[in-house]
Amino acid sequence: MSKYTAMEKSALNAEYASLKDSFEAYKAQGLKLNMARGKPGSEQLNISNDMLTVLTPDTDFTSDDCPDCRNYGNLTGLDSARKLFADILGVAPEMVFVGGNSSLNMMFDTIACMMELGNSGEKPWKDQGKIKFLCPAPGYDRHFGVTGYFGIEMITVPMTKNGPDMDVVEQLVSSDPAIKGIWCVPKYSNPQGITYSDETVKRFASLKPAAKDFRIMWDNAYIIHDINDTPDTLLNIFDEVKKTGNEDMVFEFCSTSKITFPGAGVAALAASEANLAILKKRYNFQTIGYDKLNMLRHVKYFGNLEGVIAHMQKHRAVLEPRFNMVLDMLDKELGDLDVASWTKPNGGYFVSIDVTEGCAKRVVALCKEAGVVLTGAGATFPYGNDPKDSNIRLAPTYPPVEELAKAMEIFCICVKMAAIEKLI
Amino acid sequence: MSKYTAMEKSALNAEYASLKDSFEAYKAQGLKLNMARGKPGSEQLNISNDMLTVLTPDTDFTSDDCPDCRNYGNLTGLDSARKLFADILGVAPEMVFVGGNSSLNMMFDTIACMMELGNSGEKPWKDQGKIKFLCPAPGYDRHFGVTGYFGIEMITVPMTKNGPDMDVVEQLVSSDPAIKGIWCVPKYSNPQGITYSDETVKRFASLKPAAKDFRIMWDNAYIIHDINDTPDTLLNIFDEVKKTGNEDMVFEFCSTSKITFPGAGVAALAASEANLAILKKRYNFQTIGYDKLNMLRHVKYFGNLEGVIAHMQKHRAVLEPRFNMVLDMLDKELGDLDVASWTKPNGGYFVSIDVTEGCAKRVVALCKEAGVVLTGAGATFPYGNDPKDSNIRLAPTYPPVEELAKAMEIFCICVKMAAIEKLI
Repeated sequence: MSKYTAMEKSALNAEYASLKDSFEAYKAQGLKLNMARGKPGSEQLNISNDMLTVLTPDTDFTSDDCPDCRNYGNLTGLDSARKLFADILGVAPEMVFVGGNSSLNMMFDTIACMMELGNSGEKPWKDQGKIKFLCPAPGYDRHFGVTGYFGIEMITVPMTKNGPDMDVVEQLVSSDPAIKGIWCVPKYSNPQGITYSDETVKRFASLKPAAKDFRIMWDNAYIIHDINDTPDTLLNIFDEVKKTGNEDMVFEFCSTSKITFPGAGVAALAASEANLAILKKRYNFQTIGYDKLNMLRHVKYFGNLEGVIAHMQKHRAVLEPRFNMVLDMLDKELGDLDVASWTKPNGGYFVSIDVTEGCAKRVVALCKEAGVVLTGAGATFPYGNDPKDSNIRLAPTYPPVEELAKAMEIFCICVKMAAIEKLI
Repeated sequence: MSKYTAMEKSALNAEYASLKDSFEAYKAQGLKLNMARGKPGSEQLNISNDMLTVLTPDTDFTSDDCPDCRNYGNLTGLDSARKLFADILGVAPEMVFVGGNSSLNMMFDTIACMMELGNSGEKPWKDQGKIKFLCPAPGYDRHFGVTGYFGIEMITVPMTKNGPDMDVVEQLVSSDPAIKGIWCVPKYSNPQGITYSDETVKRFASLKPAAKDFRIMWDNAYIIHDINDTPDTLLNIFDEVKKTGNEDMVFEFCSTSKITFPGAGVAALAASEANLAILKKRYNFQTIGYDKLNMLRHVKYFGNLEGVIAHMQKHRAVLEPRFNMVLDMLDKELGDLDVASWTKPNGGYFVSIDVTEGCAKRVVALCKEAGVVLTGAGATFPYGNDPKDSNIRLAPTYPPVEELAKAMEIFCICVKMAAIEKLI
């Protein structure tokens, strides 16, 4: 098959008719397929099942700093859990706050804290009038959701293959004191699977914000989530900000949601002493402490960082063939047509595809008609507004493999149909 | 022993010298005893140990509305968990939102939501200038902590044996639109163990607030936490507000923190459809969902309400003798001296004692000197300010029984010493 853009109209019409036949045939099957969210599939959930029986009535519930993990207390989490997350993140245990089951919730609470209390001696964000956040896009829709909830204006920053466009970031951050933060998924970014280059991380660490209370929300959700033999490496942001004296500029987040159980993992953040002190001013009133039995369950199950890394190989074994299937099918079905480009990530949970400009919404709608649910077009941009209407996020992890294959077939048909509709 | 108030000064001096000898003897032992917080003791924690092994790799993780409890989703909690809490609270399951491990956190988030979004069509609380909350006192220090964190002015309302002084509540709530809420622990109140009378509950349900966005924070923390054969009964607030058309006026909270594990229980709230809709506007951005495996663990462990009630009998077996010991010792040591009065609760976690006016701080300080940590004097009042410096909260549940006995001996000595110091 040659490039659509080089084909005669009659040939395109014939191709469209053929695609339409396939489309209708799928549609008639009344399928219900879903590639919308980055949810682990059943096979992945089973990997961690043995964690469920790690704690028994015979368990020793004392742990380091804690006389009994079943009882109240230990606001910042068990020492042993702080140590485990510290090792994952490559920071000192004293920098770690271990929370509940959701890093999103910790990010939400962190923004809420900055809104209510502020930082670096500045007024609370809520008392500073209009404030803004930089949102590298395509990005994670739930980040944008949090920002929007708090009424923070979102400024889109383009993504490059090395991470956010740092020329843009530096220019904006250094010139506008109303810009209070930026969302980053620095490794295997959602949705593109891009890992920030060393230079990008160093430029982040060297930012000279106009706002003293500017904060980087470093959501390291996929920090050890490699899926093949050529994993990316990411510089440690806290090592870098130490060199530049910008330790207070970063909040880092991670969780075991995609290591153990999405609904029953443990989340953590890392922050400087000053930032932790501010957060604790809020957490002290918010709760007596998070679920220490679930922390203990994780600590005992993994033992240490090596245990976590070994565990991730089991996820990789499930995910690698799925990603390969998706990428192979994109290559085979769309590779020569000049109707789409996509990323080939070495980890994370998504494949990001840019279809013909002005076609993303149409592709998502066609897929829906044929029984395939995708992440809404535009969801990867602030305000749900993809200016080129081009980006679509594919999440290959959740559906059973047979369904994934079928969903991808339908997806490719819809991409082609939408492209031809645009051309003729 | 006769009343101190009726004794000659010389007799008081002799008594004081004798008390001081005992005090010094205890002090020399270098004790470390703690009656400060309402924490269950080890015996109580052991009661729920079998819950830890309820979930195994063979468990069926599908549950009603949820295809897999291990995965993301189900913002308002598992249907089965909502049903269990609905039965505990006596409300419809649709009214229940099941959260994380902390009802305090749910209360905090509820206040945050009202601050940020408001309710009943009124402006967000944060945009209404100075707002106020009624705080029946003595009350729960962490309630006051949340209120203070959000900069809400606290107005103390006196407690009577039937609950908050409703004449005061009605007068204030109906006349001042800046009053946006009230904290209530309606059953076995913290710290007095008072259960609101039927009339009190009905008067709450019939309030005619000047503020349309006034809300009752009904913290039913001890809803099934009876400790003897003569348990109190509490009218169902939602039954009452239904009669008065005030369904939107109440948020009710509870948790299993003092049913299963304090650090690893499950919390829930109940609210009207309109109030749940507002909360969900926030929760939708805050998290993808709470720990459904812990919900499932609880549901499978208890089965139903009857299972929970039977379980509470095991707690009662541990707590009843402890409360009896504390009350017996107070009777024996202080009963005839006219230096203190106290409550005799039928449930809950505390005994509240009013010592000679102006002596609470002194008693707490003396106890500390002798190695007994009590809740800080004043903690049971807004701003930590007990105008009479009289109320002390005793928490008899946590220390081992031998330590509790010793702590109570010391406590009684200190109450007597402080009273004599005041008299002479």
